[in-house]
Amino acid sequence: MDEALAAAEAEQSHRHGYLHHKEDYVKRLRRIEGQARGLQRMVDEEKYCIDILTQVSAMTSALHAFSLALLEEHMAHCLVDAAAAGGPEADEKVAEAMAAIRRLVRS
Amino acid sequence: MDEALAAAEAEQSHRHGYLHHKEDYVKRLRRIEGQARGLQRMVDEEKYCIDILTQVSAMTSALHAFSLALLEEHMAHCLVDAAAAGGPEADEKVAEAMAAIRRLVRS
Amino acid sequence: MDEALAAAEAEQSHRHGYLHHKEDYVKRLRRIEGQARGLQRMVDEEKYCIDILTQVSAMTSALHAFSLALLEEHMAHCLVDAAAAGGPEADEKVAEAMAAIRRLVRS
Amino acid sequence: MDEALAAAEAEQSHRHGYLHHKEDYVKRLRRIEGQARGLQRMVDEEKYCIDILTQVSAMTSALHAFSLALLEEHMAHCLVDAAAAGGPEADEKVAEAMAAIRRLVRS
Repeated sequence: MDEALAAAEAEQSHRHGYLHHKEDYVKRLRRIEGQARGLQRMVDEEKYCIDILTQVSAMTSALHAFSLALLEEHMAHCLVDAAAAGGPEADEKVAEAMAAIRRLVRS
Repeated sequence: MDEALAAAEAEQSHRHGYLHHKEDYVKRLRRIEGQARGLQRMVDEEKYCIDILTQVSAMTSALHAFSLALLEEHMAHCLVDAAAAGGPEADEKVAEAMAAIRRLVRS
Repeated sequence: MDEALAAAEAEQSHRHGYLHHKEDYVKRLRRIEGQARGLQRMVDEEKYCIDILTQVSAMTSALHAFSLALLEEHMAHCLVDAAAAGGPEADEKVAEAMAAIRRLVRS
Repeated sequence: MDEALAAAEAEQSHRHGYLHHKEDYVKRLRRIEGQARGLQRMVDEEKYCIDILTQVSAMTSALHAFSLALLEEHMAHCLVDAAAAGGPEADEKVAEAMAAIRRLVRS
């Protein structure tokens, strides 16, 4: 493997902590997609509003859990690696992660 | 139209305020389902974690907006009708709506 | 008791479901005020950030529980009474409660 | 200044990013304490429930903003410093910060 490729791969594995569990994340999202389809069926079959709301809450919780897992891997890899490397990139990573956390808290 | 049918329809329109906008709700959910598929593509194409988190927050916001619209119709029709009819059903509807609101606040 | 006074009292008990538990609500808020003071002490004594964050989360949970209790009484009395009375006031009460719920979900 | 003292101070400034703005944080909390007192007055004066809920939401937003500011300083100093120093402490800091973020998202 030549050096440029090695550097590119190092960069990539550095930036994407979640890649180690990629299949796991896709599977979670497929399940969430299934919940969205299940909800369409409930509305179509005119189910009771409160039962629909319960299912939406379950789906929102699944999305939050997905975000938190992704954020944790991002911090454990990307942010920690940037901090270990030193320089201004660590500050940028913190600011970027904080912006994501703010959106998460509000959403 | 015979009386039993009329009563059944009254009951149904009473219970499902969202039925008047059923197509609209299904359309919203179809869009949310599309967001779940778009997220799978992002993970599969190994996009940057923070960009994925931004999309998850957009999807969570869409789900919250869906819940709040459904809850509003539920309260405007089902809860208000139960209260107008009098009797213990109004208390049950309030307790049921509050349980849904608690789940919404936490999810 | 003259009629105007009776009407004023009916109106008031109609609008403020929480009045029956006024002391209880004040007590909860006094406890929350104490938590705010405890947090000032923690910052002043330079406690560890994560421990401070844990206490802020406890305080936010107490505030959410306060809001949900107040909202439940509001809906059980004010909203249900308006709906029972009929007329456009019920719609206004629903819109007003929904605005409060939206703020609660976002805050 | 002897070495032990220097080490102790380094450790402390390492652990408490917020110390640089300590007065600012105490001031924010004092304002939040004032909001808690204002709410007690509102309940005592039997203000309208929806107006009380609006004030509680303002107070909850102030607490969230406080948490996010503290978390940002914690990550920019404590977490980044631990990552720069290397070793297992960085992982512990990430796990600890994530636990705080989970409580924040739920509270």
